[in-house]
Amino acid sequence: MEQFDVHILGCGSALPTTRHNASSQVIRIGNKQFMIDCGEGTQLQLRRQHIHFSFINHIFISHLHGDHSFGLIGLISTFGLLGRTAPLHIYADPMLEKVMKPQLDFYCKDIKYPLFFHGIDAGKHSIIYEDNTITVETLPLNHRMPCCGFLFREKPKRRHLIGEMVNFYNIPIFMRQSIKDGADYTTPDGDIIPNSRLTKDADPSRSYAYCSDTRPCPEICEYIQGVDLLYHEATFAESEKERAKVTHHSTASEAAGIALKAGVKRLVIGHFSSRYDDEEILQKEAREIFPDSICANEGLLLEI
Amino acid sequence: MEQFDVHILGCGSALPTTRHNASSQVIRIGNKQFMIDCGEGTQLQLRRQHIHFSFINHIFISHLHGDHSFGLIGLISTFGLLGRTAPLHIYADPMLEKVMKPQLDFYCKDIKYPLFFHGIDAGKHSIIYEDNTITVETLPLNHRMPCCGFLFREKPKRRHLIGEMVNFYNIPIFMRQSIKDGADYTTPDGDIIPNSRLTKDADPSRSYAYCSDTRPCPEICEYIQGVDLLYHEATFAESEKERAKVTHHSTASEAAGIALKAGVKRLVIGHFSSRYDDEEILQKEAREIFPDSICANEGLLLEI
Repeated sequence: MEQFDVHILGCGSALPTTRHNASSQVIRIGNKQFMIDCGEGTQLQLRRQHIHFSFINHIFISHLHGDHSFGLIGLISTFGLLGRTAPLHIYADPMLEKVMKPQLDFYCKDIKYPLFFHGIDAGKHSIIYEDNTITVETLPLNHRMPCCGFLFREKPKRRHLIGEMVNFYNIPIFMRQSIKDGADYTTPDGDIIPNSRLTKDADPSRSYAYCSDTRPCPEICEYIQGVDLLYHEATFAESEKERAKVTHHSTASEAAGIALKAGVKRLVIGHFSSRYDDEEILQKEAREIFPDSICANEGLLLEI
Repeated sequence: MEQFDVHILGCGSALPTTRHNASSQVIRIGNKQFMIDCGEGTQLQLRRQHIHFSFINHIFISHLHGDHSFGLIGLISTFGLLGRTAPLHIYADPMLEKVMKPQLDFYCKDIKYPLFFHGIDAGKHSIIYEDNTITVETLPLNHRMPCCGFLFREKPKRRHLIGEMVNFYNIPIFMRQSIKDGADYTTPDGDIIPNSRLTKDADPSRSYAYCSDTRPCPEICEYIQGVDLLYHEATFAESEKERAKVTHHSTASEAAGIALKAGVKRLVIGHFSSRYDDEEILQKEAREIFPDSICANEGLLLEI
């Protein structure tokens, strides 16, 4: 199967710490790389993690708090210095383009690549990106400002041809694609060979959901039902439950509750408050509700 | 003597590397802290170097390239999150305020402290900051855009009273300040005791000059003559001399040439191009011309 992994660049929250960078991660699916969020220092993290800048063509911004977006101007500028010519697409609240325009006009007037802003409506569940193999959907979240998560989902894949059967029936090459798509095969003699004799099941279509920053949102569970991996913010421990409510964040238990309700396969929690010197307590609390939970960390690579 | 030191937070150039952060440094003089330049990631460097955010009240920006200014919005925002109430003063090309305004209006509308932008004319040598103990002067530089260095200079200090003489003549407390300033003492009997018998020389007034980014500028030598420490950019080695000219930067030899001509006491070079895996060659080339040269490095603390 093609590579599908999530590379954590930063999983801290608003205040900088020596333990965690501001939010950002890179999703690699096959030879495509997508970035989610871009807090200050993201480009340094790309360097540290040896991730090629030039393969990133699409950046999804969950919401316009600084710890999720202040790294954009530096990254856009560096792409220019590196001689990028490929278009860069940024998906974010329409306000981002307005706020960045004077900066872009001043600092990035010499960049040689097209930069496109795609305004997204964080309050609506919709497909905002689609190519031949994947879709990206928004997940409406509940934060102090318009904010959405992102669901990356592979499209259904083609069935696998069984080599021996292809040879046995001497199936012409031009017919093989439709058989992979499920067609039966009609022999020159008019016999119909059912698809199930010619093919094996397709690889499963994998999926990844990113939910940060937010109060727990049971409404999203229908969209993320059964995803292979859920990244959910868990800014606070249970002892700070009231603070989580006031600041529109989640506790680790609440994040785990969403994972449980949505029946996801694995949970990774992040967006840790700067008050925690280690996140052991958060992981413990999450695991009490959803055992297959781990804490994010800078450099963590999660294969899906 | 009071503390006077320079703390290097970043000494890389435009492209991020795993070796160097973008330009920034903190100058501590007594209980005051000043920042020069504020590239992306500066607030993280403050954390890493355990420098108190709250003591920084004045930030001087040499010029409006991203690697000297992209960290400002994050720092301003974090000051707000930390509950700062003390005014923050930013000294920079007037364009900075215009470029940042939409960002500040959007991201920082809730900050509780006054933020003042002071426009500076980088082409003019003038005093842009003054308090009871120091002055900060601009040093016009030669870069691809308006750019200036900064000269921090302690004001002349008061002479030291000689304790034995003060006791011998029983000098009243109210007269001691004027004697520290150089006055003679007239005894109740009318005898005049010359100041030189009552005091020792004042501590020397120390000075620090920051020059980045720039072609070598012999014109500044009159202003920085004999400074205790000069930070001068040395983006390139001699083998890249042509590239230094085209990009309006300096080689290590050229930086050392300025140090020599200005008769400074020590030179520290920085703003290293990302092409150097170590800066040995730059230090070597600088020392051939000005032996008391060292390379900057993140975390380096230079006492003056």
